[in-house]
Amino acid sequence: MFSNPKVAVIMGSDSDYPVVEGCIKVLKDFGVDFKVMVCSAHRTPDKAAEFSKKAEENGYDAIIAAAGKAAHLPGILAAYTVLPVIGLPIKSSTLDGLDSLLSIVQMPAGVPVATVAINGSENAALLAVQILAGKYPELREKLRQFKEEMKKSVEEKDRRLNSKINEHYYA
Amino acid sequence: MFSNPKVAVIMGSDSDYPVVEGCIKVLKDFGVDFKVMVCSAHRTPDKAAEFSKKAEENGYDAIIAAAGKAAHLPGILAAYTVLPVIGLPIKSSTLDGLDSLLSIVQMPAGVPVATVAINGSENAALLAVQILAGKYPELREKLRQFKEEMKKSVEEKDRRLNSKINEHYYA
Amino acid sequence: MFSNPKVAVIMGSDSDYPVVEGCIKVLKDFGVDFKVMVCSAHRTPDKAAEFSKKAEENGYDAIIAAAGKAAHLPGILAAYTVLPVIGLPIKSSTLDGLDSLLSIVQMPAGVPVATVAINGSENAALLAVQILAGKYPELREKLRQFKEEMKKSVEEKDRRLNSKINEHYYA
Amino acid sequence: MFSNPKVAVIMGSDSDYPVVEGCIKVLKDFGVDFKVMVCSAHRTPDKAAEFSKKAEENGYDAIIAAAGKAAHLPGILAAYTVLPVIGLPIKSSTLDGLDSLLSIVQMPAGVPVATVAINGSENAALLAVQILAGKYPELREKLRQFKEEMKKSVEEKDRRLNSKINEHYYA
Amino acid sequence: MFSNPKVAVIMGSDSDYPVVEGCIKVLKDFGVDFKVMVCSAHRTPDKAAEFSKKAEENGYDAIIAAAGKAAHLPGILAAYTVLPVIGLPIKSSTLDGLDSLLSIVQMPAGVPVATVAINGSENAALLAVQILAGKYPELREKLRQFKEEMKKSVEEKDRRLNSKINEHYYA
Amino acid sequence: MFSNPKVAVIMGSDSDYPVVEGCIKVLKDFGVDFKVMVCSAHRTPDKAAEFSKKAEENGYDAIIAAAGKAAHLPGILAAYTVLPVIGLPIKSSTLDGLDSLLSIVQMPAGVPVATVAINGSENAALLAVQILAGKYPELREKLRQFKEEMKKSVEEKDRRLNSKINEHYYA
Amino acid sequence: MFSNPKVAVIMGSDSDYPVVEGCIKVLKDFGVDFKVMVCSAHRTPDKAAEFSKKAEENGYDAIIAAAGKAAHLPGILAAYTVLPVIGLPIKSSTLDGLDSLLSIVQMPAGVPVATVAINGSENAALLAVQILAGKYPELREKLRQFKEEMKKSVEEKDRRLNSKINEHYYA
Amino acid sequence: MFSNPKVAVIMGSDSDYPVVEGCIKVLKDFGVDFKVMVCSAHRTPDKAAEFSKKAEENGYDAIIAAAGKAAHLPGILAAYTVLPVIGLPIKSSTLDGLDSLLSIVQMPAGVPVATVAINGSENAALLAVQILAGKYPELREKLRQFKEEMKKSVEEKDRRLNSKINEHYYA
Repeated sequence: MFSNPKVAVIMGSDSDYPVVEGCIKVLKDFGVDFKVMVCSAHRTPDKAAEFSKKAEENGYDAIIAAAGKAAHLPGILAAYTVLPVIGLPIKSSTLDGLDSLLSIVQMPAGVPVATVAINGSENAALLAVQILAGKYPELREKLRQFKEEMKKSVEEKDRRLNSKINEHYYA
Repeated sequence: MFSNPKVAVIMGSDSDYPVVEGCIKVLKDFGVDFKVMVCSAHRTPDKAAEFSKKAEENGYDAIIAAAGKAAHLPGILAAYTVLPVIGLPIKSSTLDGLDSLLSIVQMPAGVPVATVAINGSENAALLAVQILAGKYPELREKLRQFKEEMKKSVEEKDRRLNSKINEHYYA
Repeated sequence: MFSNPKVAVIMGSDSDYPVVEGCIKVLKDFGVDFKVMVCSAHRTPDKAAEFSKKAEENGYDAIIAAAGKAAHLPGILAAYTVLPVIGLPIKSSTLDGLDSLLSIVQMPAGVPVATVAINGSENAALLAVQILAGKYPELREKLRQFKEEMKKSVEEKDRRLNSKINEHYYA
Repeated sequence: MFSNPKVAVIMGSDSDYPVVEGCIKVLKDFGVDFKVMVCSAHRTPDKAAEFSKKAEENGYDAIIAAAGKAAHLPGILAAYTVLPVIGLPIKSSTLDGLDSLLSIVQMPAGVPVATVAINGSENAALLAVQILAGKYPELREKLRQFKEEMKKSVEEKDRRLNSKINEHYYA
Repeated sequence: MFSNPKVAVIMGSDSDYPVVEGCIKVLKDFGVDFKVMVCSAHRTPDKAAEFSKKAEENGYDAIIAAAGKAAHLPGILAAYTVLPVIGLPIKSSTLDGLDSLLSIVQMPAGVPVATVAINGSENAALLAVQILAGKYPELREKLRQFKEEMKKSVEEKDRRLNSKINEHYYA
Repeated sequence: MFSNPKVAVIMGSDSDYPVVEGCIKVLKDFGVDFKVMVCSAHRTPDKAAEFSKKAEENGYDAIIAAAGKAAHLPGILAAYTVLPVIGLPIKSSTLDGLDSLLSIVQMPAGVPVATVAINGSENAALLAVQILAGKYPELREKLRQFKEEMKKSVEEKDRRLNSKINEHYYA
Repeated sequence: MFSNPKVAVIMGSDSDYPVVEGCIKVLKDFGVDFKVMVCSAHRTPDKAAEFSKKAEENGYDAIIAAAGKAAHLPGILAAYTVLPVIGLPIKSSTLDGLDSLLSIVQMPAGVPVATVAINGSENAALLAVQILAGKYPELREKLRQFKEEMKKSVEEKDRRLNSKINEHYYA
Repeated sequence: MFSNPKVAVIMGSDSDYPVVEGCIKVLKDFGVDFKVMVCSAHRTPDKAAEFSKKAEENGYDAIIAAAGKAAHLPGILAAYTVLPVIGLPIKSSTLDGLDSLLSIVQMPAGVPVATVAINGSENAALLAVQILAGKYPELREKLRQFKEEMKKSVEEKDRRLNSKINEHYYA
């Protein structure tokens, strides 16, 4: 039904948006269609279940789910779909995100969640793109360019830092 | 429909049963009806949701949910009911139960789970009895007796240990 | 003696009040009577013991106890009563609340404390309401409405966030 | 060049094999081709780099990398490829796998590793299958069957446990 | 009333005795009178409170309190006395003793507990002897001898290990 | 040589002083003589050793040692004296004081350090006073008064908070 | 080729520079030549490998590598050289640097990384100087002077703090 | 005075020897002279201080110090010498070695300890060899051979594991 790659970006609370926004920017840069949704595993569980059950037939290729604290959203979505679910642990106001990370990554056998770093929103999107690239080969090429630019950016930062150091310590 | 107090004891995996059994023994001692169920938030999510949605009208007074690792079961059951849900974190093979504990206790505002100690199965049952005792006052009396017996048991242990020490260190 | 549900909200230090206030607001919204008390397990232990011993005959249905660091208050209150005691771990200036959480939740067999999330004051109150609702069925209905409103609030937030995203990314 | 889905399963040390074997069994069950390799980020870094650089042109669709302690293998492989890399943290003799988990999951922006639970070898394989299923739709159907069988297995376990409980507690 | 130094050794559960025994041996070696008691902050709270309130007038010079998990015993005893209370955290079956340690050491301002290492029963006793030595100067001399013997024991172990190494690696 | 109780307050770095000051205030309030010293186990190890070796003959009754990170100062002082050494873990810029706490409390058998809470400077002083009170009985009476005032202060805070709540929620 | 001691200071990201700068200052103070480089194990892996492979023949005596989160840079450099590699864990925005520390220090047998404290940039440089001093004996003398000055600085701080205390508490 | 490289291997307790032995074997393999000593920072502090003060003039090139729990030995030795000190954290019976690691690695500015993994005895020795190789260039060559053999060993393990897998899964 869809000719474009398509990713759902679901967050447990709208307070997660400042982190999740990094995710959306990367998807847009790669030209991947996405739908953003605030949907809680605990406050709107039926909506989460319904969305996930129909995600495949509604043309989604992958789901990114961001949640904090007892972060059940990624696991619950994964329970209802065979699509790959990417879990993005959000650092909340206590425990520095360790609770979010463990609640997402320590899934029992049979229902994986592909977990990225705490607040690692860009990587959640990049992982989605890597996954989609199996089906949409043009994304592979874009990923290669992204890697190339990243390399150049590091080299540019290296040059700038060395200039600064030379000026400061040897000028 | 039920005249007796009634508790559901749900565990995410039958491998949790050796711990959960302590829970069942306490409920039986207090004369509380219970139903045991293996039901996973991730492997049988619909069954979990259905059970929880109807738990109140099916006459349950409280739910005890045991789970390990990314322990989502208590939180998911709590999402679908206004009954009190007691979370029992199971120590699994890694991280010494810290993952289970944090996944259960760190629930977001709006959907509480009454969490007990890691592997604290007896306390999960006792907490259920304390909760039920509001509605079934005869349980209050039983709880008082339980407290009294617990006290006597500690005093008896104190006597026995002191005999042993006297014999060993002063005989 | 009391015809209304009644909850004691006890905190170990008045510095816990900014967190505990969330608790009080929820109880008020649900029309539950409450008494607030500053009472320390370590600085006023007799007062804590006395209160707890008489809490049942003084018409309390449940106790909420908030404490930080070596948070002994909930456990000590639980030692003296058969009422359900809800433990609310307060995040203090070191260790991000992990000490408070473990000191409250890891209770030995025989004396449970129903623990909620670190700084989870609203959930402490909601759990109290869920517990009371066994005896006071009108609270069940209010809890159902609360769940419904919570759902609507999430959906409203979803709409607002999507508007914002559409404006920002597609306008 | 390859018509079959194909996954590389790389482990940092042959001592990881007892855990990694669970991974291989799942891949075989799903009919996914795989290559197993012992290859260390620290002891054979050139081999790791070479393999990863050429993994795409050699027809791999995804890489599973298992490692313990300062588990750099998944991240290093991810540095050299645009294929999705799945990280499997191995519990080693100290720190209960927390070091392995953090070393794998906390990747910097730009180079994601899709992390599964500590010792979660089956989920590493299932995640690979979910990823491949975008390109090889027949795997989607197999995943659905797997989910169905998992559900039945839980229900069967529920029946058996209830029989056992009935016998033991009510016979 | 007492002419001898006198220490109370109180443990929350008789299951703590295998650890606590190390404590008793040291006190006996130093000729310090002691009373051992099993007395729980949660199961026999009145007994704990009574004991502590009268400990000073009953001639005790210090209290050693051993407890595990949510280890409230040392703190509760400290609440009722101005005697120094030494807290001995017991490693229990989960979390490797971290819960016991934090529950004992993180006391709020005003009520200190002198905490020793997890399962550090010998040091609990030695600390008691050091404290008593202010009042009973003959203990100072014994502590000096103890330190001297400890030194000799390390030197003897050094000799034996070097013999073993010489034999094994150079013979 | 000294007729007054006397405590050494040693800190590893002058940056610890803002915390340690709380310690000094309590000692002054109790009329205990004290000497403050900046002395590092790592930067001035000889001075630390010398001080500790002679602390007893120089009339000290106890030593309080504050240190952060790999906090070796209390343990090193304890190695050289039979006086009781109180360890005060300082929260530093990383790891929230857990490193300081473990480095101080986990002492090997034979050389105890009486550890108080992270940044628990008042308790370090109070513990010193409790220890000294064995030898200087007038301190016992002051400690009783302190406990009494602490109790009154909590009760006063309780009254004030309840006034505030009554005004705000019921006025 | 080089007659001077020479150290490479490599950081995974230019955002690490505010910490790493402490390192550079110490090297300059000791008159050790250094080259600073931004070079990521994940974004510029080939550059990292190339640099490390040739570091010895390019006259470097030691490498300091700073990195945060899944901090693979020190380990990867160590994989390619027999020079000593010093790992400097950077505290990042989550988990307080524990992830960086464990990712750097928990290296598998065969490939050590000499790890210093989280954000311990001065010590990374001092360790490099200590290592170089084996080959360049004049550095030993400078290290002795550094130790002497450090001692004097502590003594000066002690004097100043005591003046301040005397003024404030006794004036 | 010495023509051979020479390393001191010091352990806080002879119970650390089963781990430390790995260290000795590597030093012997590399032909490095070593002296083993049991010497505790807490039980024989003067001996530790004396040894370290004279280590340089006694011809040592580096010190390896192994210790567990509140592991002060490496830091204390480092306080008294300008030689590089390598810290080897020993996993003890509680906290899985985290206490040992933090007590060793989190050294304050000015006194570094080169820390290796918990129980990483081989790496402690290899790091010593890498450090010595600056002064004794023949060790560089041996390190290169060691790296080469390590590589071959991994490749051999890869072959053997693949044979086993082929037999088991495809025969």
